[in-house]
Amino acid sequence: MNAQGLYIGERSASALAEEFGTPLYVYDCASIARRVQQLREHMPPGLSLHYAIKANPMPELVRFLGERVDGMDVASAGELQTALDNGMAGADISFAGPGKRDEELALAIGTGVTLSVESPGELQRIADIGQRLGMQPRIALRINPAFRLKAAGMHMGGAASPFGIDEEQAPGVLQQVATLPVRLRGLHIYAGSQNLSAPHLVEAQNAIFELAFRLAGYFPDGIEWLNIGGGFGIPYFPGEQALDIAPIADNLDKRMAESESRLPGCEIVLELGRYLVGEAGVYLCRIIDRKVSRGRVYLVTDGGMHHHLAASGNFGQVLRKNFPLRVANHVDNPEKETVTVVGPLCTPLDLLGDRVELPKAGPGDLIAILQSGAYGYSASPLEFLSHPRPEQVLL
Amino acid sequence: MNAQGLYIGERSASALAEEFGTPLYVYDCASIARRVQQLREHMPPGLSLHYAIKANPMPELVRFLGERVDGMDVASAGELQTALDNGMAGADISFAGPGKRDEELALAIGTGVTLSVESPGELQRIADIGQRLGMQPRIALRINPAFRLKAAGMHMGGAASPFGIDEEQAPGVLQQVATLPVRLRGLHIYAGSQNLSAPHLVEAQNAIFELAFRLAGYFPDGIEWLNIGGGFGIPYFPGEQALDIAPIADNLDKRMAESESRLPGCEIVLELGRYLVGEAGVYLCRIIDRKVSRGRVYLVTDGGMHHHLAASGNFGQVLRKNFPLRVANHVDNPEKETVTVVGPLCTPLDLLGDRVELPKAGPGDLIAILQSGAYGYSASPLEFLSHPRPEQVLL
Repeated sequence: MNAQGLYIGERSASALAEEFGTPLYVYDCASIARRVQQLREHMPPGLSLHYAIKANPMPELVRFLGERVDGMDVASAGELQTALDNGMAGADISFAGPGKRDEELALAIGTGVTLSVESPGELQRIADIGQRLGMQPRIALRINPAFRLKAAGMHMGGAASPFGIDEEQAPGVLQQVATLPVRLRGLHIYAGSQNLSAPHLVEAQNAIFELAFRLAGYFPDGIEWLNIGGGFGIPYFPGEQALDIAPIADNLDKRMAESESRLPGCEIVLELGRYLVGEAGVYLCRIIDRKVSRGRVYLVTDGGMHHHLAASGNFGQVLRKNFPLRVANHVDNPEKETVTVVGPLCTPLDLLGDRVELPKAGPGDLIAILQSGAYGYSASPLEFLSHPRPEQVLL
Repeated sequence: MNAQGLYIGERSASALAEEFGTPLYVYDCASIARRVQQLREHMPPGLSLHYAIKANPMPELVRFLGERVDGMDVASAGELQTALDNGMAGADISFAGPGKRDEELALAIGTGVTLSVESPGELQRIADIGQRLGMQPRIALRINPAFRLKAAGMHMGGAASPFGIDEEQAPGVLQQVATLPVRLRGLHIYAGSQNLSAPHLVEAQNAIFELAFRLAGYFPDGIEWLNIGGGFGIPYFPGEQALDIAPIADNLDKRMAESESRLPGCEIVLELGRYLVGEAGVYLCRIIDRKVSRGRVYLVTDGGMHHHLAASGNFGQVLRKNFPLRVANHVDNPEKETVTVVGPLCTPLDLLGDRVELPKAGPGDLIAILQSGAYGYSASPLEFLSHPRPEQVLL
């Protein structure tokens, strides 16, 4: 950012809006590469880094990340196809999701993907489909742990859940596995998402390793693959601080040293989605109208909740908070105004910024929503009210 | 519904799922036609009935309704194109929305659509574009009233709003209109949505007519068109009762008689979206897995929030409530079970029914979500997690 306005990578937001039109999602490769580099520098050298495609399945972005990570996690046959089409080998892909259809399981088995098994029923279906295909499915048991990640954006674990097999049921299911024609590779244990507290993440990761150590005895050939999930958050709202990964890296170093004896030969996988791409994305829209209603100033833009559901506060948020907003073409205008930024839809839900102080702006100016690289475009009701889709550009 | 399971129109849900696959949206023409018929029977004969396409823009459904209503309301150029492509004349279409782009205004002016003007700035743009096109735009002023519809699902009016021109500002804007090369047709006054109380709707409609009578003096040639909005709700949740339209019809009869002298020659438009199509739609999905986690039974289906955001509780709901759910292939099974119905996505947001009592069901059985004809398919993040789209069938 400078006096000329917001820059995304080497390009000014104004020039990008001019070239590609608005509304527009811009993803900055350099930012993604820096994030991967930072993780590689801090994390233990043996740790595998996976990208969870669900955060952003744009093909060019998946290809870019595919050259920089050790594997990917997919959540549907569509995501699996995106990973394969963009250079990932099936052997480096894992597939989790509580409702995998038979044809999805068949595709995954046929391409050598590691399937995270979510229930005894799914385990049986995987074995049956493998037999029909004449192939041995590669599986990991996904565990619903008895603990939970404290202060996570979304909790996984510590309660009843549709995800994975309850920790208490795992020994019984592992005995069932031994009777089936599948290759049991290991465990997938995921405790929660969008967490900004290193101590909480350390505590959860320790619990994950402890659980894996306890369950190792049920693996006749040992655990060869352990996916410890991710859950690394990014700051969205005022008062939130970027996650400090140094203590997490230090702790993982210790756990991995311990694993060398307790889980010999086991690949440890850290699976990150939002953390890799969320901060690299900006959503740009243009102000169409400025109006005043009963003392409140509204900036009406050509972008809205149909493109960015999370920014409108309708993506699981209990209390709506404003994403970080900027007036992209003159971020430093000293004249400020408290405005409400809305989209073009005929619904009060189409709210991008509720009474936020911004440099004074009007029709033709650009609004940027930062932290929009994850769960933006693909997680939005793009066809709601039949507006055109935003472009997506990877810089 | 009978012992064989749920019927939609003349077809059983099982046969529909077999023919079209799951997940599937089914819309029942006969139900829509009955609803229109019922309105025609009750409402005053001179009242115009409009369909608000935003509720469900499926082209075949828009065509079906186009033969039965007097006009349509659109909220984007895309919806306008859908209306025109499916037999509506531009003269019978009105276009509202706070952020209409210049190219949308041009299309609307060129096709003779009535534009609901949402702000003084938009009024000036409309006049300028009309001059460039050499055409006289047809406009109505959309008013943000000082009153509000009590107990509405969404309030419009009574506060600051991005929608329309504040009632207090209307006289000034109407004076501005007189200086511009536009054809001022009338007013659009909308007070709120999804209301199940006839007394509240009657009260709001009375206030709308009073406001129109007050503003009529500012129309040199009189008001020829008055859109009183809609706001008729449908029951979604336990304890909600269907709207009793008889008292509304009685009251409208009186208001329209009064209008004959106070707004001579004025067309009165009732604009309904959800009320026309909401109850005609069913979302069908198939159970993939049944699992028990820490005492809770989960039914995991092939459908979820990516197809039906509203049923997941992430479409503006402050408190999530279950949409009406059925086990479509054996609705009358006497053996009941309290279950949580979820979709295939890797997120706790993908919840279709939270601890709901249903006939006992398992893999292969069908789950139906009723009241799904409005704000379903088109209002959902269809690409989230890259699953296939549901089919849509109009019976």
